[in-house]
Amino acid sequence: MNVPAIPRAAGANPGALLIRQLLEVPLAQFPEREIVYAGHTRLDYRRFGERVARLGSALTRLGVRAGQTVAVLDWDSHRYLECFFAVPMLGAVLHTVNIRLAPEQILYTINHAEDDVILVHADFVPLVEGIRARIERPVQLVLLADAAGAAAPAGGAGEYEALLAAADPAFAFPDDLPEDARATTFYTTGTTGQPKGVYFSHRQLVLHTLAERAAVLGTGQGHVGQNDVYMPITPMFHVHAWGFPYTATTLGMKQVYPGRYLPEVLLRLIATEGVTFSHCVPTILHLLLTHPLAAGTDLSGWKVVIGGGALPQALARAALARGIDVFGGYGMSETCPLLTLAQLEAPMLERPFEQQLALRCKAGRAIPLVELRVVDPELRDVAHDGASQGEVVVRAPWLTQGYWRDAAAGAALWAGGWLHTGDIGTLDAEGYLKITDRVKDVIKTGGEWISSLALEDLLLRHPAVAEAAVIALPDERWGERPFALVVPKAGQELDPAALHALLADCAAQGLISKYGVPERIEVVEALPKTSVGKLDKKAMRAHWTP
Amino acid sequence: MNVPAIPRAAGANPGALLIRQLLEVPLAQFPEREIVYAGHTRLDYRRFGERVARLGSALTRLGVRAGQTVAVLDWDSHRYLECFFAVPMLGAVLHTVNIRLAPEQILYTINHAEDDVILVHADFVPLVEGIRARIERPVQLVLLADAAGAAAPAGGAGEYEALLAAADPAFAFPDDLPEDARATTFYTTGTTGQPKGVYFSHRQLVLHTLAERAAVLGTGQGHVGQNDVYMPITPMFHVHAWGFPYTATTLGMKQVYPGRYLPEVLLRLIATEGVTFSHCVPTILHLLLTHPLAAGTDLSGWKVVIGGGALPQALARAALARGIDVFGGYGMSETCPLLTLAQLEAPMLERPFEQQLALRCKAGRAIPLVELRVVDPELRDVAHDGASQGEVVVRAPWLTQGYWRDAAAGAALWAGGWLHTGDIGTLDAEGYLKITDRVKDVIKTGGEWISSLALEDLLLRHPAVAEAAVIALPDERWGERPFALVVPKAGQELDPAALHALLADCAAQGLISKYGVPERIEVVEALPKTSVGKLDKKAMRAHWTP
Repeated sequence: MNVPAIPRAAGANPGALLIRQLLEVPLAQFPEREIVYAGHTRLDYRRFGERVARLGSALTRLGVRAGQTVAVLDWDSHRYLECFFAVPMLGAVLHTVNIRLAPEQILYTINHAEDDVILVHADFVPLVEGIRARIERPVQLVLLADAAGAAAPAGGAGEYEALLAAADPAFAFPDDLPEDARATTFYTTGTTGQPKGVYFSHRQLVLHTLAERAAVLGTGQGHVGQNDVYMPITPMFHVHAWGFPYTATTLGMKQVYPGRYLPEVLLRLIATEGVTFSHCVPTILHLLLTHPLAAGTDLSGWKVVIGGGALPQALARAALARGIDVFGGYGMSETCPLLTLAQLEAPMLERPFEQQLALRCKAGRAIPLVELRVVDPELRDVAHDGASQGEVVVRAPWLTQGYWRDAAAGAALWAGGWLHTGDIGTLDAEGYLKITDRVKDVIKTGGEWISSLALEDLLLRHPAVAEAAVIALPDERWGERPFALVVPKAGQELDPAALHALLADCAAQGLISKYGVPERIEVVEALPKTSVGKLDKKAMRAHWTP
Repeated sequence: MNVPAIPRAAGANPGALLIRQLLEVPLAQFPEREIVYAGHTRLDYRRFGERVARLGSALTRLGVRAGQTVAVLDWDSHRYLECFFAVPMLGAVLHTVNIRLAPEQILYTINHAEDDVILVHADFVPLVEGIRARIERPVQLVLLADAAGAAAPAGGAGEYEALLAAADPAFAFPDDLPEDARATTFYTTGTTGQPKGVYFSHRQLVLHTLAERAAVLGTGQGHVGQNDVYMPITPMFHVHAWGFPYTATTLGMKQVYPGRYLPEVLLRLIATEGVTFSHCVPTILHLLLTHPLAAGTDLSGWKVVIGGGALPQALARAALARGIDVFGGYGMSETCPLLTLAQLEAPMLERPFEQQLALRCKAGRAIPLVELRVVDPELRDVAHDGASQGEVVVRAPWLTQGYWRDAAAGAALWAGGWLHTGDIGTLDAEGYLKITDRVKDVIKTGGEWISSLALEDLLLRHPAVAEAAVIALPDERWGERPFALVVPKAGQELDPAALHALLADCAAQGLISKYGVPERIEVVEALPKTSVGKLDKKAMRAHWTP
């Protein structure tokens, strides 16, 4: 027989949307496509499907049942992808642990999510050992190791490959899961309070995958086909690497999982594995482009979605000059995450370069099934003129229904029946969203709204500026005034007066309001960041407010 | 404000899958794309959206409420597309009436579906007048007219354009529909009994659209992008023109609705409107290619999905020679309909032409979310070797849940938890399905299964054969024996002995079993057809069985 399909148990629910279905088509149609881990482990989809079944069998033998939670602490790997499928396919919940959090925060999420099993890479065994006494539930630890001889956690349940080798390759996953079963959870860190758990059901992840797939496929700029080669450069713990591993798998794409995000490893994999499609935050792309290895690496034709922050025009220019097809996207942990993509359709590729560049650097247009609005505080739409600002609110069938075990925060998120992103933006007549600020970072001065992001983008145009942050400081006369912090590039000098002149010049050109030019610009050595590398404006306000 | 969106009433259900959502993205992103009717009526998406709102308002003023049924008898038009959206968006059910049925059958479906309002094109007013006295419920008739002065039905509720002109362009559709609300119904005609009603919910149509969109988008052969120009050549009553009008709309494609299917009109529209994407049954493509106008029309680059019957290799060859990117698809009324598409992915385009041709002429590979199996009578998978035959059974989230008000037939359709297509097929190692026969048309002779379709395809290779049908006739010794009927091309002679020799030669080459060569081949003037133009093998068996 040798039918490369996931075996099914009886009791089917033929209309339900289940994660298992994302795996059916690629196993039947692309059994020989490759999945590569860190350049050394290679498997084809047929073997991947068998390993997913073995993992389901192994976890069941460890006692995992529907409704329990399985946590993972790993670098980006084929193992992680196996967990993306096998854990929810058992009816259990996959907790993708943010390994960049402080140990105390990781402990908090493990206890809050009520993890039953933790799969932990050897690199994180010391971390887990350090907090283990304070994990509130009995928990089984499984070691993930890239080489023999890795130190296993004391009293662990075994090593991943050994457990898989002993497991049943024809394990039958349950076929009667309800589509609303919780499938994954991830903890998002705001700049206040403890991490909050967002969660997504089978139905939500299938719909997100289908819409993401429909949004990225196509014949124009920024679109992909089944023969593209995918490598994530947003970690798999972070809302499932933005859902793209599910999308790439269901398309049967060749996939490359890089392990740790070391620039030299990423650049080497792009070249040796023929990577053509990735996604990352602006900082990572900047790191890659400025790495010494980049000069000798052919990056042309590489399609890169930038999210987690606006794509700065300077970075887009540098990437386009290398032949990289770079464009923005937008979403957040609460939205699974994809909401918009800034691809250009064919007629737009006829426009002048600067207009194309501006479009690529926007958040983009709603993907299928996303209802995207920019509204005033009474939830009335602002004009779609590319200038009127308001809060971005959305609906889509895959948004988190709330925060796990935190009903009050969830109710605030969904005030008025729309998910409030907390972002300020504009919509233009072609449906392009541009994020101009965070609701809490916008500077309200003399009755006007000044975008801190717009000021930062202008400051970054100065050749000696490496990083910039603009915050609001209280002002007796104007309510608030902008205050700019800039970090010079290594070995370069920065004169605040020159930056002030640059911004005043921008105001004279109409790029910003003249009220937007900050009186105070300070040169600093570094800016405070959150655990995921975003500017920590709350810390800056706390430090700089008189 | 001028926000080109469908206004919403309060009471939202933010996670539900609703047809309204398919319209949100194109209205926001492609307000200026065109929808063309028969080359004379042109509107952009912005105006289309406004007309959908007006239609919702007009139908509400006529008393249409959630749960009621609105029937349409029209040629393919922008009006029909407006009904595709406005009727379900009211919570009402759209009954797409098969205008090719006999008047008695149309009457049956109108009564069985319990239509409350009938939108009827002037061409079908005499038909409706003829059956009106026997329509069991009180029904309101709305006239659809292409020109002033069309004869309205007696006591009608008005003319479509006049009703729209008087209606509210800012009509707010209900925003709290349940996603499982019935949205559309269509009556499928088997060769036995009365037509049976299949029906689809909002959720099912949204999922079908999203999966169809994901399946047709891409960079390779047979794939489309948002800048393709769509024209259906499968009537809109027939399971919503295979769902493609929804897919084209949600993509924001330019759309061309041709009215009646006159070859000269279709060919002219392809040229003048720049049509690049269509779907039709094999017969129509054959008609177009052999029409005198075809020689002077540039058809290169036109992508055509063939369904409703296998794509014959001879037809595929002729189309490819004209530069048409033709390939098969598969589905049925019960399946919404799309299940598979026979696009070739990039590496397959490197194979020899004859292999590519064979793949294009298969039913194709499962589209996203379709679970496709070929099974023996005990629902066990046959080998995926491209040779082992079995019945095609499927699951997908958009299959009809049964037949409307016919529970027994629905239970048989879903025996064992899988939808039984009634088709015999094979699956190969790359996931390509090939339909070899209907369960009821397969010829069981001496313990072997002979495919009637395979024999027909071979007979069609003879240059003088226009049509061919093979049926099983009872045989005392072998159980059944194949019997072939052939129609010669106009003005050509056909010798049954020559056809017999051709098939014997095919058997000698191993293309068919030697037991498959029919002893009897008859030349006839025409073959009996069903209302939708398919071979009526039931009528043939009744006529030819001794």
